[in-house]
Amino acid sequence: MTDSKLPKPLSGIIPPMITPLKDRNTLDIEGLERLVEHIIAGGVHGLFVLGTTGEAPSLSYQLRQEVLERTCNLVKGRIPVIVGITDTSYVESVNLAEFAADCGADAVVLAAPYYFPAGQPELLEYVTHIAPELPLPMYLYNMPSLTKVTFDPSMVKQALDIPNVIGLKDSSGNMIYLHEIIQICKDRPDFTLLVGPEQLLAESVLMGGHGGINGGANLAPKLYVDLYNAAKAEDMATVRKLHNQVMELAMSIYTVGKHGSTYLKGLKCALSCAGICSDMLAEPFTNFKDAERAQVNSALEKLGLLSDKASC
Amino acid sequence: MTDSKLPKPLSGIIPPMITPLKDRNTLDIEGLERLVEHIIAGGVHGLFVLGTTGEAPSLSYQLRQEVLERTCNLVKGRIPVIVGITDTSYVESVNLAEFAADCGADAVVLAAPYYFPAGQPELLEYVTHIAPELPLPMYLYNMPSLTKVTFDPSMVKQALDIPNVIGLKDSSGNMIYLHEIIQICKDRPDFTLLVGPEQLLAESVLMGGHGGINGGANLAPKLYVDLYNAAKAEDMATVRKLHNQVMELAMSIYTVGKHGSTYLKGLKCALSCAGICSDMLAEPFTNFKDAERAQVNSALEKLGLLSDKASC
Amino acid sequence: MTDSKLPKPLSGIIPPMITPLKDRNTLDIEGLERLVEHIIAGGVHGLFVLGTTGEAPSLSYQLRQEVLERTCNLVKGRIPVIVGITDTSYVESVNLAEFAADCGADAVVLAAPYYFPAGQPELLEYVTHIAPELPLPMYLYNMPSLTKVTFDPSMVKQALDIPNVIGLKDSSGNMIYLHEIIQICKDRPDFTLLVGPEQLLAESVLMGGHGGINGGANLAPKLYVDLYNAAKAEDMATVRKLHNQVMELAMSIYTVGKHGSTYLKGLKCALSCAGICSDMLAEPFTNFKDAERAQVNSALEKLGLLSDKASC
Amino acid sequence: MTDSKLPKPLSGIIPPMITPLKDRNTLDIEGLERLVEHIIAGGVHGLFVLGTTGEAPSLSYQLRQEVLERTCNLVKGRIPVIVGITDTSYVESVNLAEFAADCGADAVVLAAPYYFPAGQPELLEYVTHIAPELPLPMYLYNMPSLTKVTFDPSMVKQALDIPNVIGLKDSSGNMIYLHEIIQICKDRPDFTLLVGPEQLLAESVLMGGHGGINGGANLAPKLYVDLYNAAKAEDMATVRKLHNQVMELAMSIYTVGKHGSTYLKGLKCALSCAGICSDMLAEPFTNFKDAERAQVNSALEKLGLLSDKASC
Repeated sequence: MTDSKLPKPLSGIIPPMITPLKDRNTLDIEGLERLVEHIIAGGVHGLFVLGTTGEAPSLSYQLRQEVLERTCNLVKGRIPVIVGITDTSYVESVNLAEFAADCGADAVVLAAPYYFPAGQPELLEYVTHIAPELPLPMYLYNMPSLTKVTFDPSMVKQALDIPNVIGLKDSSGNMIYLHEIIQICKDRPDFTLLVGPEQLLAESVLMGGHGGINGGANLAPKLYVDLYNAAKAEDMATVRKLHNQVMELAMSIYTVGKHGSTYLKGLKCALSCAGICSDMLAEPFTNFKDAERAQVNSALEKLGLLSDKASC
Repeated sequence: MTDSKLPKPLSGIIPPMITPLKDRNTLDIEGLERLVEHIIAGGVHGLFVLGTTGEAPSLSYQLRQEVLERTCNLVKGRIPVIVGITDTSYVESVNLAEFAADCGADAVVLAAPYYFPAGQPELLEYVTHIAPELPLPMYLYNMPSLTKVTFDPSMVKQALDIPNVIGLKDSSGNMIYLHEIIQICKDRPDFTLLVGPEQLLAESVLMGGHGGINGGANLAPKLYVDLYNAAKAEDMATVRKLHNQVMELAMSIYTVGKHGSTYLKGLKCALSCAGICSDMLAEPFTNFKDAERAQVNSALEKLGLLSDKASC
Repeated sequence: MTDSKLPKPLSGIIPPMITPLKDRNTLDIEGLERLVEHIIAGGVHGLFVLGTTGEAPSLSYQLRQEVLERTCNLVKGRIPVIVGITDTSYVESVNLAEFAADCGADAVVLAAPYYFPAGQPELLEYVTHIAPELPLPMYLYNMPSLTKVTFDPSMVKQALDIPNVIGLKDSSGNMIYLHEIIQICKDRPDFTLLVGPEQLLAESVLMGGHGGINGGANLAPKLYVDLYNAAKAEDMATVRKLHNQVMELAMSIYTVGKHGSTYLKGLKCALSCAGICSDMLAEPFTNFKDAERAQVNSALEKLGLLSDKASC
Repeated sequence: MTDSKLPKPLSGIIPPMITPLKDRNTLDIEGLERLVEHIIAGGVHGLFVLGTTGEAPSLSYQLRQEVLERTCNLVKGRIPVIVGITDTSYVESVNLAEFAADCGADAVVLAAPYYFPAGQPELLEYVTHIAPELPLPMYLYNMPSLTKVTFDPSMVKQALDIPNVIGLKDSSGNMIYLHEIIQICKDRPDFTLLVGPEQLLAESVLMGGHGGINGGANLAPKLYVDLYNAAKAEDMATVRKLHNQVMELAMSIYTVGKHGSTYLKGLKCALSCAGICSDMLAEPFTNFKDAERAQVNSALEKLGLLSDKASC
């Protein structure tokens, strides 16, 4: 295993790429190309494919492989590519990790198996068993709202000793949890700690985290990169200004309609309004209809995120 | 699509078959044979493969296909075989349903996609879209503790009009919910209503349900068949006697250890103690160690469920 | 302490009386009189005041005392009166129990303190400490949706040995739980087991419970008494017929509007439509407005529960 | 109503005072005196009595009045005193607010009624009704883990227009929520926003909050005041140093034992080890026994929080 390109820790903005779809089992290939270039042009520090925002669990395995392979080919090593391999089946996780390595990806990301909720000792055993079978280093992915289990701080403490485990992405939205993890990782400056919700990017970087895997960076990658840089530089005036922009984006684009899925629908709709890619979602979700799309478009205009040529 | 063998409603005991494993990706083939014969010998009315008790989400797709194909070949049409096709990916659910039809299975069982929690209108749309694409009739499977969403009674009411939807298995453990569903299905005597938790078998049959998909029927199929028959016959003295035995089994075999998975571990351990098949579990679970196995064995002895030749 | 009037177990229908209000701190005294007579005329086996359905936690302490005293005076020993003393403050629970004894009540009912969720050992200690300080025998009240804690079966098993504890009311809606409690209480035929949700009355009596504390018995006491008697007599045809009526009542009267409080609002509104008492609720709830009231009234008509003279 | 002493916004550290008890219904009066002086000596900006940390719901009403009156007398106007009046009964909340005004308190704090969970429209109506009846200005108190309901951002937005509502304390532990509230209150610089969990003090002040109502400030008030000041001054090196100390305190003192109540037990135990007041808790909790006390004491030593004379 070689991972020389991969910084340790991996710092900065690593957008969780949405998966542009033409229909439930067909990629929007042109959209994918535009999206990858749009994101890289924003100065991001890596790309995370097949995560929650990428709707990975909703895609067929063939489509997961296709998006992974195409993305690696498009990125061409310009930035690290990390790959979600979370699955309810251990064997399928290993299979996908092997495919990711073949595609030239840099690392994998693994949340808890999400059908049966395991106890903490079983989670530790699970991670301990799977890590050495993977051809790439692995980030843990704490996502309790969807997996029903948390990687408890005491479990993470023990996981620090597993050779192939190199970091953790926390999407719990719980900053107390993240502070506890930061304390636990005090003596491991190489162990990457990234935060999922973009509303928490500023403070997590100010207080010891390494950056963010933030969905909005699909749409406005430079905004998130700038916020990350300001936080690293402790330039609090800029931090507050850009954090406010992130909050305005999140409170307008992600809150149209009433379901928990409004984040994903709003984000894909915004990318479509911005002329980047299709807004199609895989089941169990459906894209926004005209009324909601008009709301998203108007929010984008107010945020200055619509380029001249984008038609909605 | 032909489903002439399938009674409507499907009444009685349809055990959710555990998947006998040698290791995480290898079937215990001899165990599977013994198990299928043991279950059929108990007089059951059908067999449910690849459900929650079958650990389907934890198995590789190749293994899911293998257990399905082998089971259909072993059953040889003696009883209906119904097949879990629940998946986070719509496409994979359809793929598995097609394979199930090819194997000669009689119907499929579909819970909500279990990574992203859909809203009720999206669930209805999901079921409406997928039903006509399936080569077999479909039972809905309400399993909110693991899928994070309920098929609300109002959604089920609308789903009654979808041609290929022929019933519902309720594993919520919530009898108020089941009573509401029974009311909603009043005018559809052909629509099958089965209950998951065996502790609720007696009352659900007494009050209008059609039977049970009860895990314990892997171990003691005749007990559950007898209880079902007594409830159908309104023989309350027998109902209470056999229900007490079911409660004793559940409160001893399924409560060793402290995790939510103790049901599955206890059941597989008991089948191993009874000499039927291996107690191996797929990740994220692990089988019982010696101390817990001794507890299970002693419970089995007390319940009179250890045959002479079984060694533990 | 004398409790000679109190049957052990206390079997049958013990309605949890709503508290008729003129405004948040004033009883509807005439309504209370009509309600008590209406309930007793239905042939019930006891009366539960100051429970959840009685909105006890929302009332001032002075008002709690008034409703208790007036009700005992109205009942005049015709049936047992049991009194909710659940409180976040141990001292206030004891105070109210003493007042209840002075009023001539027969027993008290105690749920877990509902602000801080205690662990099971602390719950057992709490019950162990308070029981001997109470001047009346006590029923435990399992109400996890509102108290955030369950009286676990193992805790109940230990509580059986506390002298003053004579039964349990289960409002969890979880029949698996109730079956476990029934198993645990097998050797204590004097220990009362009552079920809260009326949808579960029939099966709980069929399977070993002693009766119900069912809100609908404020409105239609005879229906619940008849259902209880049918279940005791194992007259399944009548059980199913009356259970269906209970389901129809619950699915129409308790489901108007969309909040969890619709049960309480619907019940009080129905009592008002039936001309029995005011539909005022204490904060944090408000009564139904015209549109919802019309729905309730029309449901009552359909159920045949509107007497000739009732004006709505 | 005069509240000239009360800054708007109220900024800084306002410790939620624990209630020193001799037994469940008796104050530790000497302990209370020492505690009040210890806290004020730390330079805090206010004092919050009868909150969650003060175990208010577990105390008798007489004891709530006593602790309130004595504390106001001890503080003697040196710092603002704000008073928890949260109750399941509207009338009792008003009663306590009136008593608080008579004692010379400066404001009240009101969480949602915590037995029945109200919907958002009902919560708004509740706050709208009660605010003008209170003789003191009011802070809302968002505490969903114990009250079961959140003051949703949209509800808070509407509550900004209620004359007597002057701020919000957020104990949700959810920084995304707090960021949304900060956005909503952008045009109301006088509207106080305070955070409950001390682990979130630094970032909430850095990002626009006004300070903290942090339990640890009972024990080490100067630490929290210093951290608040460093965050106000944007002195990030000091912020990180002191935040680390807060995390160490929280991760050692509040995590002994395994229940959710370990925060309260650990804090009271630490105050007892430090020689300030008794460690008695009101039901449903019990204080730490010797083994746990030794752990707390050793943690205090390591943190340098044991004064010379304190005996444990």
